Amino acid sequence: MRDFSADHRWLSINTATLRGAGRLDTAIEACARHGVRAISPWRDQVAEISLARTRELVRTHGLALSGYCRGGLFTAVDAAGRRAALDDNRRAVDEAKALDAACLVLVVGGLPGALAGRVASKDLAAARREVADGIAATLVYARSVGMPLAIEPLHPMYAAERACVNTLAQALDLCEELDPLSADSLADSPTAAAALGVAVDVYHVWWDPQLEAQIARAGRHRLMAFHVCDWLVPTTDLLNDRGMMGDGVIDIARIRGWVEQAGFAGYSEVEIFSSGNWWKRPVDEVIATCIERHRRVV
Amino acid sequence: MRDFSADHRWLSINTATLRGAGRLDTAIEACARHGVRAISPWRDQVAEISLARTRELVRTHGLALSGYCRGGLFTAVDAAGRRAALDDNRRAVDEAKALDAACLVLVVGGLPGALAGRVASKDLAAARREVADGIAATLVYARSVGMPLAIEPLHPMYAAERACVNTLAQALDLCEELDPLSADSLADSPTAAAALGVAVDVYHVWWDPQLEAQIARAGRHRLMAFHVCDWLVPTTDLLNDRGMMGDGVIDIARIRGWVEQAGFAGYSEVEIFSSGNWWKRPVDEVIATCIERHRRVV
Repeated sequence: MRDFSADHRWLSINTATLRGAGRLDTAIEACARHGVRAISPWRDQVAEISLARTRELVRTHGLALSGYCRGGLFTAVDAAGRRAALDDNRRAVDEAKALDAACLVLVVGGLPGALAGRVASKDLAAARREVADGIAATLVYARSVGMPLAIEPLHPMYAAERACVNTLAQALDLCEELDPLSADSLADSPTAAAALGVAVDVYHVWWDPQLEAQIARAGRHRLMAFHVCDWLVPTTDLLNDRGMMGDGVIDIARIRGWVEQAGFAGYSEVEIFSSGNWWKRPVDEVIATCIERHRRVV
Repeated sequence: MRDFSADHRWLSINTATLRGAGRLDTAIEACARHGVRAISPWRDQVAEISLARTRELVRTHGLALSGYCRGGLFTAVDAAGRRAALDDNRRAVDEAKALDAACLVLVVGGLPGALAGRVASKDLAAARREVADGIAATLVYARSVGMPLAIEPLHPMYAAERACVNTLAQALDLCEELDPLSADSLADSPTAAAALGVAVDVYHVWWDPQLEAQIARAGRHRLMAFHVCDWLVPTTDLLNDRGMMGDGVIDIARIRGWVEQAGFAGYSEVEIFSSGNWWKRPVDEVIATCIERHRRVV
């Protein structure tokens, strides 16, 4: 397991963590100021300052993108909605490619209509089939341009609105179904990434009794991103009450140990949605705290 | 699958649903008034009016107990706490027996100290071993008096504070480890219940990709209770924002179909924690709505 205690070279900041900073350019400049080497921006933040400007800033500061957030949301109430989702995912792949992201993270979508508050179907199995079809269609395009897709299993409390892929086992089943890897092809090209893999966020998976076994099953070809924050006790909001690493109950270092044991050697990406706390603090304080916790508890 | 549309003979009311009614005697009398044949009371509600008075009311009105809530909370910050938990669980078994409950429901406990807001350990695997030890110890006593124990896997969002058993698969692994059933013994006594089984609450398990398969695995000997309510979109509170059946996104009838296919033929128990809505309404309106939804959407 890599020693993170001496520096923060493997720290990445998901820029959702810095929503309190205002625009993405301000957030990127703050990251650069603190010697952060990698970020993972959100599409709405990029759109606000333009893709070209984002690309310029990323290059100027020599930043890597540990991921790009996000594609997915494949389920829809009708065929037009499903087509629009696929079009939008191709655009997301193009943006990720333009920014040279390590992967496009997929938050796959929940029950059709649920995120808008008008559930059109309670058929969770059907939603899951729709998700598989959406990933399959997007994968054809993503492969053609060489952009890996990382399915992010979300905590089961998001199954209705955001993602009906809720365990690492389920995400890996999809990977094996849609992007089978032969032992030979992997042996021939030991450093090649798969076209389809997973993003492991400790917030979503820490509770899973199968976690250690499924991380081992994933292996380095499927482990495309590792996200950290913490589960607060008590948690007061289902979406925007995530904690800074060390302030909650997740044994983050243990999970990072499993991920690295399986061969992951990328960035540890801090992604904290925190409307009541961290989004209200000065951006320099937030980044300094991320760095300190990265070195001490991740 | 049984037809629930014509009557509510298989409806049970978990009296947590009626916390707005005030004391348990008021709640029980309201259930009797509406022709409800079964209830499942909570220990704090029983303690308030005394076990003897509860027993008298239950007998007077000819009520069955589909379960008794709750035992468990086995994890503790020290050895004294663990001993106290075991003592308390024996008392819970005695109370369940005095009321002739179908089973004692176990909410097994989370990380030690978390429910009190002071987490003493982040070692989830250790908490799970402690839970297994606690169930094993309690099972010796429960077997001796003939009270079945039903492990209730809780939604993963309760893993920290309330229960670190979070999937039906995990609960069934515990059942098989602690209370193995031989094919012969079951064949000899086809109606015998196991000493250790599970309580399936749709709120906790509806999202699980393995749900159908694990219900089939459980079978009638392990399926000791079936709880219903609904998952609201959006959910505004992690604990007390559960919905009335039909107001949320769970396909309850489909899950009941799986449970009955596996051999369950007991009560469908309504358990709704709802501080903002149902606990504020008149108890007769709550029960009438439970009955109507039981007939129409369960």
